[in-house]
Formats: sequence, structure tokens, C-alpha cells
Amino acid sequence: MARIGDISERQLIEDFRSFIRSEGLIGPGDDAAVIENGTVVTTDVVTFDRHFPAGMTYEQFGWYAAAVNFSDLAAMGARPIGFLAALALPLDLESQAAYDIMSGIDQCCEFCGTGIVGGDTKTGPGIVVGTALGTMDGRPPMRRSGARPGDIVAVTGPVGGPAAAFIALEKGLDAPEAKESLYVPIPRVDEGMAMAKSGAVTSCMDLSDGLGTALNTLCSSSGVGMDIELDFIPRGPYVDEMATASGKPVRELLLGWGGEYELVFTADRERLDRLYDEEIEFSIIGMVNDSEGPNLVEDGKRTVIPYGEY
Amino acid sequence: MARIGDISERQLIEDFRSFIRSEGLIGPGDDAAVIENGTVVTTDVVTFDRHFPAGMTYEQFGWYAAAVNFSDLAAMGARPIGFLAALALPLDLESQAAYDIMSGIDQCCEFCGTGIVGGDTKTGPGIVVGTALGTMDGRPPMRRSGARPGDIVAVTGPVGGPAAAFIALEKGLDAPEAKESLYVPIPRVDEGMAMAKSGAVTSCMDLSDGLGTALNTLCSSSGVGMDIELDFIPRGPYVDEMATASGKPVRELLLGWGGEYELVFTADRERLDRLYDEEIEFSIIGMVNDSEGPNLVEDGKRTVIPYGEY
Repeated sequence: MARIGDISERQLIEDFRSFIRSEGLIGPGDDAAVIENGTVVTTDVVTFDRHFPAGMTYEQFGWYAAAVNFSDLAAMGARPIGFLAALALPLDLESQAAYDIMSGIDQCCEFCGTGIVGGDTKTGPGIVVGTALGTMDGRPPMRRSGARPGDIVAVTGPVGGPAAAFIALEKGLDAPEAKESLYVPIPRVDEGMAMAKSGAVTSCMDLSDGLGTALNTLCSSSGVGMDIELDFIPRGPYVDEMATASGKPVRELLLGWGGEYELVFTADRERLDRLYDEEIEFSIIGMVNDSEGPNLVEDGKRTVIPYGEY
Repeated sequence: MARIGDISERQLIEDFRSFIRSEGLIGPGDDAAVIENGTVVTTDVVTFDRHFPAGMTYEQFGWYAAAVNFSDLAAMGARPIGFLAALALPLDLESQAAYDIMSGIDQCCEFCGTGIVGGDTKTGPGIVVGTALGTMDGRPPMRRSGARPGDIVAVTGPVGGPAAAFIALEKGLDAPEAKESLYVPIPRVDEGMAMAKSGAVTSCMDLSDGLGTALNTLCSSSGVGMDIELDFIPRGPYVDEMATASGKPVRELLLGWGGEYELVFTADRERLDRLYDEEIEFSIIGMVNDSEGPNLVEDGKRTVIPYGEY
């Protein structure tokens, strides 16, 4: 008899998707679901065991637990209108730590323009399940499936900082700005809302599973290919230093890790002025074409971008 | 330094409530929150450790994890429009058990007229966090704070079955209908919607923490007292038998335990015909008065009903 540990997390999520019915207007397959009254909703599990790197504070853990959910709303272009926090905390956890977690959640909610509207608390091994609720205010949500050949591919900010942070932690190196990007990810809620408003964006998702996986997902959801220029990808703090320190290629840090929360999107190149009008900062990293899957162009050579290992 | 284990769950939830802001139109303090776009939302944590009595199947555990959330929507009178399931399951759990949990959640969603719209899966000790979403379809939600002296107090069905089941399990006795009420609680979603529609109900909540606690909560939220007639409370299966078998008074089984999911409500006695028109089954168990807190009338004697121990 197969056990949970024998099945990849990806496979398990795929299997469970068979239970997800068409009740939602959108989803599964996008960053968040949209239900019949237009509410955009997403939930994510974060755990002490897996999402609490060395050096992170409890307050930052709380922020992170909220941020990963708001990032999913951001990818749809939704405006946050509420957050639920369900906690399962160890009996021997200092109560101050529990309040710090709640405070971190609260601060991230405030940053995203909303607040905690409910929750639940039980004892457990250190798990926070966040649920973020949003509204599109009548705009169509951004999805993963709308990229078309000729569109530009862009990211809302530098990538690879969290990968650099993980390497720095492993090697006992200092890399403060990289660690900050790992401990306190900024959900791109304002950017997502402005992108949805612009009408220029044809597909979008967040980078929680890494840029390589995200590009593959956009390509397969949209039935397109992409050429991505390695040199165009904006590099987060300490990416070059930690690539050198670890002997890993820069492309791996930029594409193969997760835990970061910029948005990647495609946009109609005839409508880029609308993105500029919305004052959205972004970096064009490549183009959509009619091949299959994403390729990386590095020193004039094209190679396939794999799904990330994260 | 205080630790989580030193603080009562009630106190912890109270403390965390200080973080809940006025973003929601309703909540905290009711069974579910209502946010700015009218969505009714609630989340509950259930765990293998605490909510998996002997004899329960994984499918029933899944049903239970969904039912406790739909019961909160029912208490507001909301129509379910979506459910999110976040799971943290042990690596050594048989994969069939995981699918059984999902299937149980799915069946309860279908019973409540909706479906699973999203979720997340991680490894963990066996925790399901459900989030139920609903709409009032324009009706005002039922709250805990509207009971007025002169209102009747009623429940939607018999109580004490789960208490009888716990005793039967402890003593190794057979009590199949009682155990069924523990393993497969029926969220009173249709009843709640009809009650909200009737316009007769002045306050409502579910019995997840037991009838005694619920009556105390309605009294304190509404600033009223109640007289409850012990003999009027409809008794679930095996309540009398298990009271005898355990030597506990019947009142304890009816009032002092939780894990059941009927609704308790108060209603304007001039409008009871509206409840009958909606074909809602209910049993009147007492009256609201202008004293303080709920009292039990048993053989002509009045005694204070305490908050349950559950």
C-alpha cells in the first residue's frame, strides 16, 4: 500500500485536484480560485518544520504565512478584503512567540490593505494555515492561460535573493539583503492590482515555486513557448557572490529555487504603455513564441528551462 | 515565561481576538465573519490527535472537518458557496486514507450544496484546516447578540448523542446511533438558511462547544437571561442509558459536552408561525428573560447553567 511519503507532493496535489469541482468560476490551476460571488480565495499551509529557516524570527514567520497567500491574490490582480489565520502551535511554545506570529500576520495584512477577520487555534506541531480573500472590483482576473506568441515576458523585481540566502545560511556566510528577501517577502499586491487594471497583461503567476517552474507552468497553461534571456533577468542581492561561493551556476539560483514572491507575467507588446501609465516597475526578460516550453538564451545558446527542483 | 500549554484555549483565542480588526462587517464574536463584499467566512482546525475518536473512519474524519465549518455558516444562515481544504498529513499515512479524507470532505460539501474550490497539502501530524465560504443572498445574518426577553429558546434537534457516544466508547458499550451522531454530524445548513429567511430568529449559534456554553454565550452576547426546562430538551440516542451507565446526571450529557452540531436559537414568539411556514423542525426548550445568564429548571428548582467543560 502506497503511503503519503512515497508520493511526490506534486502528484498528491494533482490527485487531490480531482476532487475540486466546477463550483468555482476559476480554478484549480491558477494561483487562487474565484467563486460564484466573485470572491477570490486561496489557502496555504506553512510549517515550523519547513518554512522557518535559521535566523528567521517568529514575527517574520507570521509575516511569511500571510505573504504567501497575499502573493496568490496578487497574481490574480485581486484587492485583499480579509485574512483568516488557523494556528496549530506546540504546547511548549513561549506565548510571546505566538503573539509575535500573530503580530507578523497582522503587519502583513496591514501592508496589503486588509486585516485578520477570523481564525482558529489548536495545539499542534507549529503550523499556520492562512486563507486570503480578495475581490477583483469588477476587473477580469489575470490567469495563467492567456499568453500568446509575440507577448513580452517580464518580472516585477529581482529574483534569486532567497536562493542566495539559503546558500549563505548553509555556508555560514553573511548576506543580509538576501536573507531579508527570504525572511520578509513582499507580496506584489499593488503591482498585481495595477497590472489587472492595465488590461495589458495576458497571463500571470507568482514565483513561489521558482522562476523556472513558473515559466513552465505559464507555457503549458497557455500552450506556448518562450525564449528567456539570462542576462535580462534582474539579479537579487548576493546572487553572483553565492553562485561563486557554492560553485553553482547563476542560472540555477535564478531559475531553480523557490521561496520568492515577485510576479512573472506576459503582456501584449502593443499595450506596454498602459503598464508604464500604471507606474508598474518591471523588467522584460524574454518573449513568448509558438514553440513548446521555456528556453534560456545564454551566450547565444538556447537550452531548455526545466521545472525547478524546489 | 508563559508557554502555550499554560494558557487555556479560551484565553488564547481571546488574546488573539485583539488582532482581529474591524475590516469585517461582522465578527469576531459570531460563528463566522462577514467581510465587505458580503462573503461569510469561517475556518476551523481539526486534528487526528483530538478529533478522531475510536471507531471513526478516515472518510468520516473528512466529513467532520468540513461539517464543523458548514455548521458555522449554518448558524449565520448563510448559503455555502465554496470550501477550501488545507491538509498536513503524516508521511506514513496510507495514501488511501488521504483520499478517503478528501472524499469525506467532498461528500459533506455536496450535502451542503457546494464543492471544494481549492486547498493545499503539506506533510504534518494529521491536521485538516477547512475554510467555508457562504453568501447571505441579501438576507441579514443571524447573530448571537439579538435575543430579547420574551423570546423563545429552541434547538433544531436532539442533543447529547455525541456525549453518549464518548461514554459508550470509554466503557466499551454499543450505542450505534449515538456513535453515528458523533462520527457524522449533520450541519444544519438548510435549517439555518430557512431560519434567516423567516425573519423570526433573534439570535443563533451552533452547539460545537455544547449547549451549556452556547446558552451562556447567547446570554452574554445579548445581555439577557434564560430559563431552560430540562424536560423540554430533546434527548439524543442513548443519553439516558449512558447517563445511567456512567453515573453522570442527564443534565451533564445534555449541557456539558460538545461535538454536536444542532443550532440553538431565540425567536420572537409573535413570529413563530413564520418558522412553521418554513417547515423548520425545532423544539422549544425555554424562554429569554431579563435576568443574567441561563438557568436550568429541573423538578421546579432553578440552578445556574455553567459554561461547559468541553
